[in-house]
Amino acid sequence: MSEFDLITRHFAALGPERPDVVLGVGDDCALLEVPEGQTLAVSIDTLSAGVHFLADCDPEHIGHKSLAVGLSDLAAMGAKPAWATLALTLPEADEDWIHAFAVGFGRLASAHGMRLVGGDTTRGALSVTVQVHGLVPRGAAIRRSGARLGDAIFVSGTLGDAGLALRRILSGEPVVPELRRRLECPEPRVELGLRLRGIASAMIDLSDGLAGDLGHILRASAVGAELELERLPLVSQVAEVVAATDDWKLPLASGDDYELCFCVPPERIPTVERLAEALGLPLTQVGWICATPGLNVRRADGHPLMLPAWGYDHFQVADGRTD
Amino acid sequence: MSEFDLITRHFAALGPERPDVVLGVGDDCALLEVPEGQTLAVSIDTLSAGVHFLADCDPEHIGHKSLAVGLSDLAAMGAKPAWATLALTLPEADEDWIHAFAVGFGRLASAHGMRLVGGDTTRGALSVTVQVHGLVPRGAAIRRSGARLGDAIFVSGTLGDAGLALRRILSGEPVVPELRRRLECPEPRVELGLRLRGIASAMIDLSDGLAGDLGHILRASAVGAELELERLPLVSQVAEVVAATDDWKLPLASGDDYELCFCVPPERIPTVERLAEALGLPLTQVGWICATPGLNVRRADGHPLMLPAWGYDHFQVADGRTD
Repeated sequence: MSEFDLITRHFAALGPERPDVVLGVGDDCALLEVPEGQTLAVSIDTLSAGVHFLADCDPEHIGHKSLAVGLSDLAAMGAKPAWATLALTLPEADEDWIHAFAVGFGRLASAHGMRLVGGDTTRGALSVTVQVHGLVPRGAAIRRSGARLGDAIFVSGTLGDAGLALRRILSGEPVVPELRRRLECPEPRVELGLRLRGIASAMIDLSDGLAGDLGHILRASAVGAELELERLPLVSQVAEVVAATDDWKLPLASGDDYELCFCVPPERIPTVERLAEALGLPLTQVGWICATPGLNVRRADGHPLMLPAWGYDHFQVADGRTD
Repeated sequence: MSEFDLITRHFAALGPERPDVVLGVGDDCALLEVPEGQTLAVSIDTLSAGVHFLADCDPEHIGHKSLAVGLSDLAAMGAKPAWATLALTLPEADEDWIHAFAVGFGRLASAHGMRLVGGDTTRGALSVTVQVHGLVPRGAAIRRSGARLGDAIFVSGTLGDAGLALRRILSGEPVVPELRRRLECPEPRVELGLRLRGIASAMIDLSDGLAGDLGHILRASAVGAELELERLPLVSQVAEVVAATDDWKLPLASGDDYELCFCVPPERIPTVERLAEALGLPLTQVGWICATPGLNVRRADGHPLMLPAWGYDHFQVADGRTD
């Protein structure tokens, strides 16, 4: 046990102390206080080596990303981050690796005022499961099911950056640091999620690509959508690949964007534009909610793009989420 | 994704519906209501094939046990089970396996009124991470740190049954069904934990063996303990092994007992005796809290037993818990 005891010491105090943590790491359970009038939002996600990250990835980035994916889920509900738990499976107790992992995890936790309150460390193939816990005023959570006819559909940031980074890494091509950071150290859009309370009618985070994730909103809301390809926010490198190949898989169906996709009634479009300016984050209208079922994607010339049955060519070989 | 979508369907409705689940499986987060005056208790645990269970173990038992270990943690705090989340990593989407797993998980969840509210399914080496969420009235949780000089130390049930079952399985010997059930389908002592609110001064669940787990209480409470070997509650098969070998590792340092170890002030011993009768569960005083630091174990003849540095010969090769 001794080497694993060593490990747990690295996780005893990650993130800031919080008065709502009655009891943190070190007993059979953590004890937590949810303030009156607040609803608890929780999400659990596993990242496995070789599936969700490359086994030789910088452990600091693995620590960051394993928390970022959960923070992105909280953002998508408009929930404020509060606590995290961590189940870490490691092939060996490599203290340098663990220290770096804890640094990456702890820095992101601190940036969002989140405390690690419990965990479990086991031996096995490298895998990280994190549960995030957030708080949202009762009735204020933004679900996937609230999209209404005529709503404008927005996405934050740019799409396909992480997908392009991964494609280049896997094919041995050089990747500029900005792109690599988008893959390995995504910045969850927590502040945006909070600011969209009372504004967005429906929201989801983009972990599997816009086409699939927007599809979840459409099914949950029983509506369809028109998407205009020329509106998609793309960095120049992604735009160049798309222009050269006419392959829209990168911006529409690659994983790990960790941007938010949300719907707003048309009269709130100016509010969203002001919010983009306030946050210094592009928020781009990419389409509308319509009555025709399914996702209808239009090219710049007005012709429809038939969506192929895109598979996943990146590590996210199979990832069935129930949340 | 399709085969993994199949999987998620098995987990969409496990355990009873609960009015405090505002939103369950199917959005970015689950939304949960914690009643006023209640504190949230959470614990996360990973069970991996080949480490915490044998890979060819009946999947129904894996489903049961993966929830049972968390329920045992809730029991050890005196918390009432409420919700669970499940992160399941599977080498392939074998629907029969998944169905059986869900049956085992769901049956135990239902028995304790617990609802599965979210999860994640990924591909990889077989591994199950479960987070349990329970509720306990503010200030009523039973911690490891409350043991006081003179307290009586009790354990529930019998010790070493699971350890003996594992030893026999690993050596190819026959195992009677009662023993095997103790290893593969442990019954978490949830009702006992709830009934010990206001009675026990300190409590822990036995997952790594009495010697080590009681040690956690002693360190957290800054006390020592006297343990009398002749008092240990043993089934005849375990008692026979100990009598034949004078090896106390089975009852003192084998994993997976999932019994509760708790301390009570001496004046409450009759209350505990009545509780044992009410629950039909043996509650056995095995020693006392004393001032001498550490764990002092006495043989029937009054001589001390020197505790060897027991390793783990069962699958729990290394398991460092931070909660």
